[in-house]
Amino acid sequence: MSEPLRLGIAGLGTVGMGVVKIVQNHAALIEARSGRPVTISALCARDRTRDRGVDLSAYAWEDSATAVATRPDVDVFVELIGGDNGPAKAATEAAIAAGKDVVTANKALLAHHGQTLAEMAEAAGRVIRFEAAVAGGIPVVKALTEGMAANQMRRVMGVMNGTCNYILTRMENAGLPYDEVFEEARALGYLEADPNLDVGGIDAGHKLALLAAIAFGTRVSFDAVELEGIGRIAIEDIRHAADMGYRIKLLGVAQMTGRGLEQRMSPCLVPADSPLGQLQGGTNMVVLEGDSVGQIVLRGAGAGQGPTASAVMADVIDIARGTRLSTFGQPAARLTEPTPAKAAVAAPFYLRMTLLDKPGALAKVAAALGDAGISINRMRQYGHDETTAPVLIVTHKTTRDAIDHALRSFAATGVVHGDPVAIRIEAV
Amino acid sequence: MSEPLRLGIAGLGTVGMGVVKIVQNHAALIEARSGRPVTISALCARDRTRDRGVDLSAYAWEDSATAVATRPDVDVFVELIGGDNGPAKAATEAAIAAGKDVVTANKALLAHHGQTLAEMAEAAGRVIRFEAAVAGGIPVVKALTEGMAANQMRRVMGVMNGTCNYILTRMENAGLPYDEVFEEARALGYLEADPNLDVGGIDAGHKLALLAAIAFGTRVSFDAVELEGIGRIAIEDIRHAADMGYRIKLLGVAQMTGRGLEQRMSPCLVPADSPLGQLQGGTNMVVLEGDSVGQIVLRGAGAGQGPTASAVMADVIDIARGTRLSTFGQPAARLTEPTPAKAAVAAPFYLRMTLLDKPGALAKVAAALGDAGISINRMRQYGHDETTAPVLIVTHKTTRDAIDHALRSFAATGVVHGDPVAIRIEAV
Repeated sequence: MSEPLRLGIAGLGTVGMGVVKIVQNHAALIEARSGRPVTISALCARDRTRDRGVDLSAYAWEDSATAVATRPDVDVFVELIGGDNGPAKAATEAAIAAGKDVVTANKALLAHHGQTLAEMAEAAGRVIRFEAAVAGGIPVVKALTEGMAANQMRRVMGVMNGTCNYILTRMENAGLPYDEVFEEARALGYLEADPNLDVGGIDAGHKLALLAAIAFGTRVSFDAVELEGIGRIAIEDIRHAADMGYRIKLLGVAQMTGRGLEQRMSPCLVPADSPLGQLQGGTNMVVLEGDSVGQIVLRGAGAGQGPTASAVMADVIDIARGTRLSTFGQPAARLTEPTPAKAAVAAPFYLRMTLLDKPGALAKVAAALGDAGISINRMRQYGHDETTAPVLIVTHKTTRDAIDHALRSFAATGVVHGDPVAIRIEAV
Repeated sequence: MSEPLRLGIAGLGTVGMGVVKIVQNHAALIEARSGRPVTISALCARDRTRDRGVDLSAYAWEDSATAVATRPDVDVFVELIGGDNGPAKAATEAAIAAGKDVVTANKALLAHHGQTLAEMAEAAGRVIRFEAAVAGGIPVVKALTEGMAANQMRRVMGVMNGTCNYILTRMENAGLPYDEVFEEARALGYLEADPNLDVGGIDAGHKLALLAAIAFGTRVSFDAVELEGIGRIAIEDIRHAADMGYRIKLLGVAQMTGRGLEQRMSPCLVPADSPLGQLQGGTNMVVLEGDSVGQIVLRGAGAGQGPTASAVMADVIDIARGTRLSTFGQPAARLTEPTPAKAAVAAPFYLRMTLLDKPGALAKVAAALGDAGISINRMRQYGHDETTAPVLIVTHKTTRDAIDHALRSFAATGVVHGDPVAIRIEAV
């Protein structure tokens, strides 16, 4: 039997301990499938003394991630610390410099420094693999980089933050407002320490930027992702959307347009009976569209110990088997700098506004939309007892720019009360 | 730039021409992703003179698949002839003997001769890849073999014959009987020359047997797949299933049980609101369940030129990139001979029968079920004007053996008219 592949693991949180458990519990299975044993040489974590319920005594303990990454008895550095800077970045760079391959679950690190790290690794003949960084246990990086490698990709979409999908699903099912469900999610431990990473769309935006780089052969450009979180989604919008056959999802969309690379992570309406619309709770879904293969949908757990560790170990086993791939599916030096295209592709929009009860109010709004070049597909005015009436409009296909123009012009009509809501309807 | 990877393609039907088109149209993309050009050296097909609408003049033309497979200027033999014997098998063996890697879309060949061919290939240091053989464009072989390699697999399920799913969906949506929709499908060209390959579950059974070998580390044992086609599904069953919140699918299930490997390809009821239940028309879906990752669902086109050629080319690009894997994810010599377990796992069943309108008829049927150790979960007797009445029963969990025993004992009750229908309800 061949030499073992030896891991050095930095970070023993949920995912790190999941990796240790798989290595311990499935040693024979992994050896059969890899053609060689996979072993652990060394570990590090913030707290050495904590009882993690697993025997770690066979492994060397280091005080820093960099020390793990550079040990002579480590072949693969497994980075499970997180954070886009600090020890994760330093240790990853040190690992590459020391001739190690890297497996990471760190979407923030790669979203911010993926290009530099990939170039470093490829110059050193090393690989960086990151299946666990995108959509947890779903093998989407592999499906896109390898399974769809013969396709010109058309569009990549995904619901890739389970916490946001939990919140939106829970709001709909329990009829609760955002703030209340947000507090529930916090109490359940579903939210990151900085909740804006989740509900602000940042975490999911990191993932989208990584998939877009693979799909379109472009440098990772997270800064160009248009980010909009779910904090402004009202329970009324969820209800109205449902009435019209839609659900609201925090949906990432990346597509190459004539004007450049469009990358958006924002709440969208999707048909309630589509695979994305039917996604409940914390599950993730990624939709990959290629010119030959058509639409491929992948669904599974986007987080959690088992699923994320499964993805980490898939990368490890690939390395054990001798599979060597460029980080983003082609040499980093070949990746092109994308031109960001702000929501270039037209779509219908859902608009909700409150009209003052004045004669001709609806006509004024309709005229403002017409002036912005927007035509109306469906409109509903709800009954009302007071001086204002809620109005819903679904437009025909238009651009975000036209919608923004129309929203600004509503103020001048004198009949729109408060801020109107505009949410894109994505064709899925 | 590295040396090109040179293909020899046998078979220029729908899939073969799809492969040629991708090689021609995406040469730059494939070279960027593979790190080397992928070219075509030689072709063969039954009819050389047919105008296929694509310029093939740059490629050598051979009179036999074996001649293509053994050319010195061919690195990868792409077998797209089909059939589990004859030229496909001979040429594949010749290719391996001549030191070529093999990419095939031929599920029948591998279902019958996969073990022998894998052993031959591995002894020669060659690979056989077959992504296109299972669920068309869906990268399910890759997801299972690589993406879930760290998992002890629990269950593999799939709707993997688009024609059968088309027929069942069309029966439900149009309210048409099986025979009529079967003829429609034949007229539309959806059926194989031998329709029993589709509607008898054989084609889907081949695919299930291949996935089971990977999932459970067992030798491909297609002969042990319990096969039941869709020909006996009546429109009444589809309607009654829908009334109770189910849909009928030709579902493949493979799982390792305490009594051995269970492999079934048969009509099953699945919840209408599950991903499998929601699958309409010719689309395929595979559900992979691993001990760490949980449930992963993959959905996409199971057939057609673009999707199948996409899968073929993914295998080719893997080879171009230098990825070398054992055919079934671990050395063929290590695969164990499975003990077949006939439907070992208990499940609820749907029963439909026609009762003669005699006093105590229902009690006699209930007693027969009780004697077989089967308890009843739900029962519906429909109104009737005649001398017989349709009765539906959903049982609690039981075994197929108990159901068969009960069905046999119904005859002796003297109150059951004709043959009762029993369909397993699969928990998905």
